[in-house]
Amino acid sequence: MWILRIDMKELSYKLEDVPERYRLLYGRALTSQMIFDEVPPLCHALGPNNKLVFSAGIVTSTSAPTSARVSVGCKSPLTGGIKEANAGTSWAPDLASMRIRALVIEGFPEQGEKYWGTFISWDKDAGKPKVEFFDATGYTGQDVYDTFPKIYERFEGRISICSVGNAGEKSYGNSGIVFNDQAKRPSRYAGRGGVGAVLASKRLKFIILNEKGSPGVDIVDKPLFDEGRKKMIDAIRSHAISKPKGGLNSYGTAVLVNILNEAGGLPTRNFSSGRFEGAAKTAGEAIFETNKERMGKEIYNHACSPGCIIQCSNTYYNTDKTERTSCIEYESTWSLGANLGIDDLDDIATMVQLCNAYGLDTIETGGTLGVAMEAGVIPFGDSKGAINLIHEMGKGTPLGRILGSGTETTGKAFGVRRVPTVKGQSMPAYEPRAVKGIGITYATTTMGADHTAGYTIAPEILGVSGKSDPLSPEGKAELSRAFQATTAFIDSSGHCLFIAFPILDIASGFEGFIQECNGVLGTNWTAADIVAYGANVLKVERAFNEAAGIKAEADRLPEFMRLEPLPPHNQVFDVPDSALDAVFKEM
Amino acid sequence: MWILRIDMKELSYKLEDVPERYRLLYGRALTSQMIFDEVPPLCHALGPNNKLVFSAGIVTSTSAPTSARVSVGCKSPLTGGIKEANAGTSWAPDLASMRIRALVIEGFPEQGEKYWGTFISWDKDAGKPKVEFFDATGYTGQDVYDTFPKIYERFEGRISICSVGNAGEKSYGNSGIVFNDQAKRPSRYAGRGGVGAVLASKRLKFIILNEKGSPGVDIVDKPLFDEGRKKMIDAIRSHAISKPKGGLNSYGTAVLVNILNEAGGLPTRNFSSGRFEGAAKTAGEAIFETNKERMGKEIYNHACSPGCIIQCSNTYYNTDKTERTSCIEYESTWSLGANLGIDDLDDIATMVQLCNAYGLDTIETGGTLGVAMEAGVIPFGDSKGAINLIHEMGKGTPLGRILGSGTETTGKAFGVRRVPTVKGQSMPAYEPRAVKGIGITYATTTMGADHTAGYTIAPEILGVSGKSDPLSPEGKAELSRAFQATTAFIDSSGHCLFIAFPILDIASGFEGFIQECNGVLGTNWTAADIVAYGANVLKVERAFNEAAGIKAEADRLPEFMRLEPLPPHNQVFDVPDSALDAVFKEM
Repeated sequence: MWILRIDMKELSYKLEDVPERYRLLYGRALTSQMIFDEVPPLCHALGPNNKLVFSAGIVTSTSAPTSARVSVGCKSPLTGGIKEANAGTSWAPDLASMRIRALVIEGFPEQGEKYWGTFISWDKDAGKPKVEFFDATGYTGQDVYDTFPKIYERFEGRISICSVGNAGEKSYGNSGIVFNDQAKRPSRYAGRGGVGAVLASKRLKFIILNEKGSPGVDIVDKPLFDEGRKKMIDAIRSHAISKPKGGLNSYGTAVLVNILNEAGGLPTRNFSSGRFEGAAKTAGEAIFETNKERMGKEIYNHACSPGCIIQCSNTYYNTDKTERTSCIEYESTWSLGANLGIDDLDDIATMVQLCNAYGLDTIETGGTLGVAMEAGVIPFGDSKGAINLIHEMGKGTPLGRILGSGTETTGKAFGVRRVPTVKGQSMPAYEPRAVKGIGITYATTTMGADHTAGYTIAPEILGVSGKSDPLSPEGKAELSRAFQATTAFIDSSGHCLFIAFPILDIASGFEGFIQECNGVLGTNWTAADIVAYGANVLKVERAFNEAAGIKAEADRLPEFMRLEPLPPHNQVFDVPDSALDAVFKEM
Repeated sequence: MWILRIDMKELSYKLEDVPERYRLLYGRALTSQMIFDEVPPLCHALGPNNKLVFSAGIVTSTSAPTSARVSVGCKSPLTGGIKEANAGTSWAPDLASMRIRALVIEGFPEQGEKYWGTFISWDKDAGKPKVEFFDATGYTGQDVYDTFPKIYERFEGRISICSVGNAGEKSYGNSGIVFNDQAKRPSRYAGRGGVGAVLASKRLKFIILNEKGSPGVDIVDKPLFDEGRKKMIDAIRSHAISKPKGGLNSYGTAVLVNILNEAGGLPTRNFSSGRFEGAAKTAGEAIFETNKERMGKEIYNHACSPGCIIQCSNTYYNTDKTERTSCIEYESTWSLGANLGIDDLDDIATMVQLCNAYGLDTIETGGTLGVAMEAGVIPFGDSKGAINLIHEMGKGTPLGRILGSGTETTGKAFGVRRVPTVKGQSMPAYEPRAVKGIGITYATTTMGADHTAGYTIAPEILGVSGKSDPLSPEGKAELSRAFQATTAFIDSSGHCLFIAFPILDIASGFEGFIQECNGVLGTNWTAADIVAYGANVLKVERAFNEAAGIKAEADRLPEFMRLEPLPPHNQVFDVPDSALDAVFKEM
């Protein structure tokens, strides 16, 4: 295995052996460790000293189910802290198959109009990957739905594509890195924290992989791996949320809309209520029924990446049976729906498609538009106005630049007080005043407000991994800590986070999960070991943030959540600061 | 003496006795202590929990020369930390004369269009100040040069006015609080850190004082005070910088332009050079000569406030002998001149006038326009374009809102790397790479980049208080610390900072300075005592900032100053972090 370093100043590359200290680090564990080791915490995130690190997970490119994730690490231009964003895509196993443990983008080219692409393939004769550069300037300033087909046409064979859209090219704090899905769409985003702007600052428009002829990953103990894999598959296929034609496969992640709305935890009209009267119209069930009506049959969801057996990714169709977008996630239908007082699914789908086309994160976009609506730029509920604002972002008008800079900056520019961010990153679709544990995760994760960092929604709302009263702050620091540590390991394993539902509820699934990893690596990890592994990832990330000046005082929710009671429960966020501080202190 | 609290939610007020622990605290010492005591460090700066505190200095409203300063304290919406901004104006002695030690604006009214004014006068019968409220909604959204005459007309007698302009009403991070000068102009600004937006968030448009009949301040030891006062006057009148027809009285603060340019420390074109080919055309000498030519005689400067014998404030005239603006400070002619590559004094004067009219800080405005020019919004040197951008700010267009949010936000919105800020506040007119000590002050002051916080320029450039090589980092942490502590005391004394020139060079002047204060208060302070007093102010401010999450990592200059050598000396900022950290650690 190698660390492949691409120097964008010199347009050169080198392969390094993986140092012993990184031997067991994959995915998020490796990207975070390398950013900690190599990036000065106080550097300008779009300057010469930042780096981007890509790494696939431990089991990625094996036959382990639902494990085609790649982590992207850097210093975030949005939060100023460390960032790991990940996506499910064929690009992940292709990277792993070429035995590139980490791909590092470094070096700082002239900040002009000129952009480059790289084509990474397996050099059979040399027995190692090789990198070619090509001029990609002609592909900039365009909808990524236009550029992807051109790249598929230009390069032979089964390639995978990593790219960045207009949002990244415009240096937005709201800009993701896009990967292909299974249908060659540019729809799979490492979306959060402005990672797209970092890639664009290196003037790298495409990272194209063709793993043809590559050896794939070694599995040290194949029988153990196979045993674990089988247990995982069984668990996934039997859990109500993850099984075929189960919750996720039928309704996608948007199955959560009605559930959270019922719980009074669906942030509505810029976090001024926890319940939206139009929620049902924007829910996964509505997506399913609308598709059924328009297509004349039931449409179940598809896999975003090879080897996924959960298959939660939907396509939303027009009345003429053409595709409107793929996919509408829970986070997206909320951020561009309830959060904006919008209940028109067609317009929400249009907005999702525009976010993908421009390279914007849908959560940050919806959070930003909510604050803009609060400021009176357009009224709540104005879906056509919202569509127009996303176009402003894509075009880079002055208003678009405010919005593209994210929710926090938009709040500053318009003098808004109700700004739902932590560490400069916009909050996802769970109201901390109605679901206290997720508020602790938002506050304390190293990532800025992020539900995926420690998804306490599982026990608080879904009854997965036990049950916990969402309105009570009791015991939630411990809960969030446990979820955050386990998650950091899952993010390093290469598995999609959605395996958490079956493995948390089904003991044999959890065993299988660990056996898979032990099988690949030859380790003897126990459950305690993987929690310790995850905790160590968090500690490294935390150390980076502290050196960047982001400390306990940044582990707080915005003031308004302690001052304004949220309907319908009329509760404020009442978790004491000491509980927030305990998350890391006692790790 | 009283603390006068005005509650803007209830439109009520109360007078409290000054508590014993505040007995010796005045000016900056008192505003900072009260903000520390009463404002939650993590509150939203434009939210219900922030407060504004006004306090005049120890000797303000006595016959001590050049002492009509008032401090304004709050949590800053620009830096997120504590803020003290001060101004010289008749408003300061009027406040002190009514024995209002601190005026606190608190309570959070409805955030609508409605604004209020307060009229504070001396109630002879009751023997204390009284407060009346009036509807000021009709005065909003206007040029403060239009509103001030209306207020002077509306209220009888010799009033002083404190107000806020469009910039504050628009919640800009770049918004000052304006006071009248001696000619009733709205030209004296507590300019920095967005204090205007805080006042506007309280929906308070005017604080009008009429001290008629008020008792004035007590002087405990009148002979000692008089002795000190005489020494101060002699020192001021004999020092080359502060004497009548000396540097400041002839050329104003802009006398520094040629000096800093010669030293290679005049930041040019957004801090990309330390020397500007057009500097001389923008200097104090050019202002003097232009006025002489246009008015047909030599015009010396005037006092901004009662009792000032330095009289550094200029008026700049048009060819038809009408006034174009008052006053063009060094900071303003630099920020809107060299920093933008502009050498047209008439256009610079127009920009100064517009900043005053809209309520913008000229330093932050020039810093912001420099970054906008770097981003290509308009070219460097385009003075008409720059004037237009200031109008955009005043009007609150989307572009204007980006710019009005300040230099740091503008850098974010346009993805600029060369952003000359510390703690979110724009750097003043001294290049840290060419004058190392002032860089330490910028980095470490509690205020965000601020030259007035510890003006090491005195020994580094002007030969005041000894001489120190500006390019050497040696001993500069100690120098900055000493200047910062002394300055914090001067800012509490009520004296203008410009008394520092004579008192640092003339021993009897320094003695007189302390005697004045001891005379008023009945204290026995020595030179060591006032340094300790100042150091304590800084420690309180520092403690607030630390609790707001602003710690040692924020005491750094932007990365580009360590990476890019600055012409003509081709030096980077090479003060080690340990020296920066030593400023407070060893205080």
